[in-house]
Amino acid sequence: MFNVNKIREQFPILKETVYGKPLVYLDNAATSQKPQAVLDSIIESYTHYNANIHRGVHHLSQVATERHEEARKRVARFINAPDSDCIVFTRGTTEAINMVASSYGRKIFDKDAEIIVSQTEHHSNIVPWQLAGEASGLKLRVIPLNEDGSFDMEAYEKLFNDKTRMVAVSGMGNVMGIANDVCELTRIAHKHGVRILIDGAQMIAHKKVDVQKIDCDFFAFSAHKVYGPNGMGVLYGKRDVLEEMSPYQGGGEMIQNVSFEKTTYNVLPYKFEAGTPDYIGSVALSKALDFVEGIGFEDIHAHELHLTQMLMDGLATIPGMRFYGTAPTKSGVVSFNVDGIHNLDIGMLLDRMGIAVRTGHHCAEPLMDYFGVKGTLRASLAVYNTEAEVEFFLEAMNRVIKMF
Amino acid sequence: MFNVNKIREQFPILKETVYGKPLVYLDNAATSQKPQAVLDSIIESYTHYNANIHRGVHHLSQVATERHEEARKRVARFINAPDSDCIVFTRGTTEAINMVASSYGRKIFDKDAEIIVSQTEHHSNIVPWQLAGEASGLKLRVIPLNEDGSFDMEAYEKLFNDKTRMVAVSGMGNVMGIANDVCELTRIAHKHGVRILIDGAQMIAHKKVDVQKIDCDFFAFSAHKVYGPNGMGVLYGKRDVLEEMSPYQGGGEMIQNVSFEKTTYNVLPYKFEAGTPDYIGSVALSKALDFVEGIGFEDIHAHELHLTQMLMDGLATIPGMRFYGTAPTKSGVVSFNVDGIHNLDIGMLLDRMGIAVRTGHHCAEPLMDYFGVKGTLRASLAVYNTEAEVEFFLEAMNRVIKMF
Repeated sequence: MFNVNKIREQFPILKETVYGKPLVYLDNAATSQKPQAVLDSIIESYTHYNANIHRGVHHLSQVATERHEEARKRVARFINAPDSDCIVFTRGTTEAINMVASSYGRKIFDKDAEIIVSQTEHHSNIVPWQLAGEASGLKLRVIPLNEDGSFDMEAYEKLFNDKTRMVAVSGMGNVMGIANDVCELTRIAHKHGVRILIDGAQMIAHKKVDVQKIDCDFFAFSAHKVYGPNGMGVLYGKRDVLEEMSPYQGGGEMIQNVSFEKTTYNVLPYKFEAGTPDYIGSVALSKALDFVEGIGFEDIHAHELHLTQMLMDGLATIPGMRFYGTAPTKSGVVSFNVDGIHNLDIGMLLDRMGIAVRTGHHCAEPLMDYFGVKGTLRASLAVYNTEAEVEFFLEAMNRVIKMF
Repeated sequence: MFNVNKIREQFPILKETVYGKPLVYLDNAATSQKPQAVLDSIIESYTHYNANIHRGVHHLSQVATERHEEARKRVARFINAPDSDCIVFTRGTTEAINMVASSYGRKIFDKDAEIIVSQTEHHSNIVPWQLAGEASGLKLRVIPLNEDGSFDMEAYEKLFNDKTRMVAVSGMGNVMGIANDVCELTRIAHKHGVRILIDGAQMIAHKKVDVQKIDCDFFAFSAHKVYGPNGMGVLYGKRDVLEEMSPYQGGGEMIQNVSFEKTTYNVLPYKFEAGTPDYIGSVALSKALDFVEGIGFEDIHAHELHLTQMLMDGLATIPGMRFYGTAPTKSGVVSFNVDGIHNLDIGMLLDRMGIAVRTGHHCAEPLMDYFGVKGTLRASLAVYNTEAEVEFFLEAMNRVIKMF
């Protein structure tokens, strides 16, 4: 049985107060809080199993290596990857996308090549492509939106032409929380013979991901957005494309043999893992995934959808309310502005009541431009948020609005 | 007064046993253990100040931002950087060197350009240059070694010619622990009009670094080798060269404005910090640096040098002992082989006695090739190692040798 209070008990930070008021943390799309099991894992690893991994002959190093590789398998199971060799540990979604842009994109972006992204993308799924395509004059083609914020799928298909080399889209947007039809997006990309990367940063904590069912070529996510540690992320890639990609960074475990004349590279996934791996972060991530699966996405989704609807219904009564994104697949994120009041001013007043929301462009300036705004106020949910918090937020919003 | 037992008390892992024997951890060149203050910092950050930083209007985010930027200043003070804007947080030394190789090197490596590295470099200071120079045919010129493992400085100067574009050398080698004369290496590089990067991964925990005194253009190190957390590192660069470098990765905080047509980049150091910064790791690193400065490099060096000499003197009595690196500036690392016995076999037997050493090539295959070996046995020290541990290791070595 889903019990939000039992869940909350696992998150020490949720007992915090801000200016003497209980913390109401509604900034989960920026980062999520961590359950005790994740914190315990970090300390357990550092106090019992801390040694640099791989090639170590001693006990500590061997145990640390086993734990790290077990975590890789845990990640593979979580997203139903066919093989843990296809799981590359990265520093986060951003590094994962940069890796694909640099090692795969740079190679296939011939002169005047095109990549398809959407109007809703986070900067981390725009700028890496711009950097990788700078020399070749890569053009970004943009999937337009329907009025409700969902992708215009007919327009999407029309963007393909003989210069299209790649599709890179988010599975769920960080501003509107709309789940995109990643299966259909992938099917169409493949019909046109190009590979697709799914930015799963926002999706990963809210929706079951099955990379084999989606059939995507790449899937990237960050640990810190799914109740896991900072500085850790994952790139899943299909084996054939990972095999054909050049290494991204040099050093550490990514080599087979090094000489000053010729260096050969390691097998998957190590080819892409230069430097000392974050074997503390990988194990902590696996504990976060245990936490999520211990609840189950059915209950998580039902709970978050319910709170999202409460938020939307409550906010809708405020005069001058303007929502961004209302598609039926929306959940977990509500972005809005109130006519005549700056989102920053509202955010600052909410903060004084202990409520953490985010204001500004949410690293999605092209979407802000599309809406003709500089920013929005964004309340974003996690599984530990409660009806009481939503009600408190709605009351606070009504109080704040009256101040203007 | 230096008191190693007081220092040891701060490291919970040092109380561990391996196969029922007390852990004797002599693998510090691979990674160091963490004092309680670092562990406490991680938990404190996650349980009181966890929020994504920069641009956040709410209290938690503001406090987390302040703590992160305070940590940057702490790092700047530790290496005497002129300005904290010149401190870029990275995932580690490897990422830092890749960043320079990709964003600076790639641009200056014209056809048949040359870079000077040394025979002792870690793969992480070889392969990034090979990757960055692949397209232009970059040639690596190698500083040869004197018999005692130190750099042949006369030969170094002769390597320069009109194709030399860069020098990249370690401040202290991870196989031999020899401190190189980084001031002189830099002076000569600058005399020839090229910039120099110092790989400080091994040096950072053992020797005071003053980047202004060295006058190096880049200095890179990892937190995990200086009693800090995993997955965190630092690139220091002189302001002028950082300013002229292009961004390395795209996404997150590294932009000023993003549109599908044109993106502009943020000021230093943010231009190089794509993705959610590891604001947990940065603060934990600052606590590790507090720990180190709380002891002071004078005492650290005296203690480690004393233990190094004990190690060398004790090992020298073993028949067939072959040391790698005996230069007077050696400290903290002893690499050796015993004639007729494989280093792996010795390492495995030491492991059964609770002693953690490293065997193999230590990610320095070109140095192994130079010595004509596949690997060495490496005992590497930290400030928490004791005379008793060194004595136990020497006894164990004598027992192990008798088994063959």
